[in-house]
Order: sequence, then C-alpha cells, then structure tokens
Amino acid sequence: MAPRGALFLLALLAVAVAVAVEAHDASAEEPPRPLVIQLPTERAEDVELRCASWRTAGEANNLAPWAAVPEDCVPHVRAYLTGPAYRSDLDLVAREASAYARATAAAAAATGTNQATAGAWVFDIDETLLSNLPYYAQHGYGLELFDHREFDRWVETGEAPAIPSSLRLYREVRDLGFKTFLLTGRSEAHQAVTVDNLRRQGFHDWDKLILRAAADREKTATDYKSEKRKEMEAEGYKILGNSGDQWSDLLGYSMSARSFKLPNPMYYIP
Amino acid sequence: MAPRGALFLLALLAVAVAVAVEAHDASAEEPPRPLVIQLPTERAEDVELRCASWRTAGEANNLAPWAAVPEDCVPHVRAYLTGPAYRSDLDLVAREASAYARATAAAAAATGTNQATAGAWVFDIDETLLSNLPYYAQHGYGLELFDHREFDRWVETGEAPAIPSSLRLYREVRDLGFKTFLLTGRSEAHQAVTVDNLRRQGFHDWDKLILRAAADREKTATDYKSEKRKEMEAEGYKILGNSGDQWSDLLGYSMSARSFKLPNPMYYIP
Repeated sequence: MAPRGALFLLALLAVAVAVAVEAHDASAEEPPRPLVIQLPTERAEDVELRCASWRTAGEANNLAPWAAVPEDCVPHVRAYLTGPAYRSDLDLVAREASAYARATAAAAAATGTNQATAGAWVFDIDETLLSNLPYYAQHGYGLELFDHREFDRWVETGEAPAIPSSLRLYREVRDLGFKTFLLTGRSEAHQAVTVDNLRRQGFHDWDKLILRAAADREKTATDYKSEKRKEMEAEGYKILGNSGDQWSDLLGYSMSARSFKLPNPMYYIP
Repeated sequence: MAPRGALFLLALLAVAVAVAVEAHDASAEEPPRPLVIQLPTERAEDVELRCASWRTAGEANNLAPWAAVPEDCVPHVRAYLTGPAYRSDLDLVAREASAYARATAAAAAATGTNQATAGAWVFDIDETLLSNLPYYAQHGYGLELFDHREFDRWVETGEAPAIPSSLRLYREVRDLGFKTFLLTGRSEAHQAVTVDNLRRQGFHDWDKLILRAAADREKTATDYKSEKRKEMEAEGYKILGNSGDQWSDLLGYSMSARSFKLPNPMYYIP
C-alpha cells in the first residue's frame, strides 16, 4: 500500500491543479472548453477498498455475469493471487471441507449405515484441483478477455500445478471412503492430457472423470453440471460434498448436501 | 496494522524466550515440567490473514454453522465493521442489486409484459434494511453468544438505524414497480415496534411485512423463509430479487431469480 503521506500530497496536488484549471476556465469566453485534465475521482485507497469489495462480492455470488476483471482492479487481483491471501483463502476452505468430510464419515460409521461408500464428492478441476495461475499471469490476471485457443494451448501442455490444499483434501476424502467424481468443463478432446496432468500432480484413483461432450458444448456450466449430478443420483450416489471455484459448479439442481466455493477473482463462468 | 519492524522484534524476543526456556528445560530433572510460557504460534500478520479468510469464507457460505466470532478475530471484525470496508461492501452489493432491478424492469417494459407489477422483491430486515451495529458494538461484535433477552430489549427501543445503501435500493425498487415484501425472523410480538422503527428510518409503503408467528418459532430460518416465499408464489408473485445478510434468507426452495448477500461477520442464523 502507498504511504498515506504520499497520497495526501497527491490529493493536494490534484486540488491545486483543479483550482488552477477552474480559475482559467472561469476567465475564458463562453462556451467553456471541455477540461483536458481529467481529475482523479478516487484516491488510491478507495480503489483498493472498492476492488476488495468487488472481489468479496464475487465470492458471495453478488456480481452479474462479468467478462473481465475491472481494469483498475488488476493490481489488486494480481497482489491477491501472488501474495499470501489467495493461499490463505484456499487453505481455509479446504480445512472447512475436510472437517465436514470427517464429520460426515464419522456420523455414517456411528449409525452403522455404510453411507460413506455410496456417498460421493464432486470436484471441479480448473482452479479447484489444478491451478492455471501460470497461464493467467501471462494474460493480465483476468483483464484479457478469455481466448479459447490460447487457453487450449496451455491446457495441452499438461503443466497445470496442483493446488496443494486441494490435493490434501482430495486424498483425505478418498481415504474416508467417498466416491470421487471429477466434473469439468474441459472438452473430451482433452481427456488424455487432463488425466496425464492430474496424475503427474498426485491425483490418483478417482471413480469417474466427466468431461464435456460435443452435445454439452452449448449448455451453461450450471445446466451441464446439474445434469451430470442428477445422473450420479440416478446411479444411486448421494452427493455429500462439492468443491468448485465457480458458482456454476455448485448451484442449479441435484445440489450437493454441502458446497465449498474456492476463491477465483480471475474469471466467471455462467 | 502493526509495523513489520515491531513484529520482527517481537518474533526475535519470542525466540529468545523460547531458547531460554528450552535451555532451562533441558537442564531440569525428568519429567520436564510443562512450559508455563505459551509461545505465539502465529505472527499478528497471520492472524489478520486468517481472519480475513474466515470472513470471506463466511460470505461465500463456506463455514459450518458457527455460534460466535473466533476470539482472536474480534479485532479484525471490529475494524471491518467500524472502518470503511463494511460500508464499501454494502454499497457495492446495493449497486449491483440496483443495476439488476433496473435491467429487469426495463426488460419487462420492453417486452410489453407488465412483469414488474407482479414481480416481487424480498427484503430481510436486521442487518439488511436496519442495522443492529449499535447493539453489537456493546456486545463484543459477535464474540458474545447470542442473548435473546438482551437483544429483544434492544429491538424494543426501535432505535436501529437504516443502512443507507439499503434505503436507497428499497426506494428505487419500489419506484420501479416491484412489490416489496419484508420477511423477517423477528417475532410477531415485535410488529408495532418494527413498523415504527422502519418508518422513522424512512422505509414506507411496503406491500407486506411478514414476521415469525408462534407456529414458526421452531423452524430454521431457511425453512420458515422458503415456506413464506412459496406462499408468495402461490399468490401469483414472481420473486425477482431477494436481499439478505444470511444465506438462510436466500437459500432453500422458491428461491429468487437473483439473490444479494449483504455482508455480516457478526452472527450466523441457520
């Protein structure tokens, strides 16, 4: 954060310029020329506040569909993602999910029902199990509009790193006896590279990996993922947990008993 | 925030104490006495990070039901509520809601359907239209367990101030032609004082004020509010917007076309 002293000086300077321009303008013949100098309407602190509010609102699903990070929030988003706050948020959500998974498994064991065996946990992949941060760091942290071809080229490298807290959660959930279903918006054309990437990052033994078929291409993620969850239920699974970085991973129908929204201020998928 | 220099000195001091205690301990006869000095396991910065993550996780509905703010997060919560961030978050959510309300009304007008007339907006009251911050400031900002009798005494003063951004939104939504339904967990016994408080704070002409009847007392807020929304639908209203500070205001069934979660790090209602 910029020191307050510097900001105050900057504000003083802005006021001085404003007064000077105003004085010139008042003495000019009418009609007054439009002001050339655009005065800042907010101090840097206010931008920081507003961008933090924007990010929080996104996490609470309060924003309308958005195509790109607001330009003046890019520094905030970059600092969030590359500093300790993103990691801290990811860790806390994973810990909450882990506590819930253990409590659910313990309750099933206590009542003698073999609930955990038929119980399933759904994981999204991108920004949930694997991180595309190396790609987005090269593409303005969400400022650039999404470019399918560029992103596909990145996916095809198979180099997306695991999100460490998600890997721990994934392993624990498996060890507790939940069925693990990976449900991704990635295309079936990327099946091999996705399996490869997941395995090299330590994800193994999932029960099902569901990728988007050609017939699902035009559906919203909410519809596509709801349909797939409904199919899981029809096959006899009870969806007890769901981890995803998009609200479209979690909302719709056949919703999980409990959902965990991982942070993602870089992009929005309807 | 504490300056890093001071924190570093504090950490150094802690290490020095640890080394001293360790040295003493090693020279003692067995069994070693338990250490009296509890060393800090986290630096102040880490507490700040963790509490910010806790608050964000609450807004994203990632926390299990919680009874009180974690004790070491009370300074964070107090600073958030009494500083500019809470106001900024409230303002941003209201602006998003306002943009959606205007777009919805415009779309209804454009298609010639009189959608806005049958369209309804549901508002929660506490921490949504009215603020109980004066009460919570006297009760540890969410650290103290909820005390019904104490809180009732506060409600009965009728002194809860309006949340300014919510008042603006309320008026705009009314002016746009939405039916406004106030749906609160407050008891019917508080009808008169609630009406009085709302009016004195500038809220007028709502279409219905629904308070909790004796028969609804044992229900969760999610069930009670879902039932009431279902009744609205049965009466022919289309719920287009819903503003509330609790996820139990928004989730369940007969959900609104769009929901707006106002921030609240002070308490959790299931």
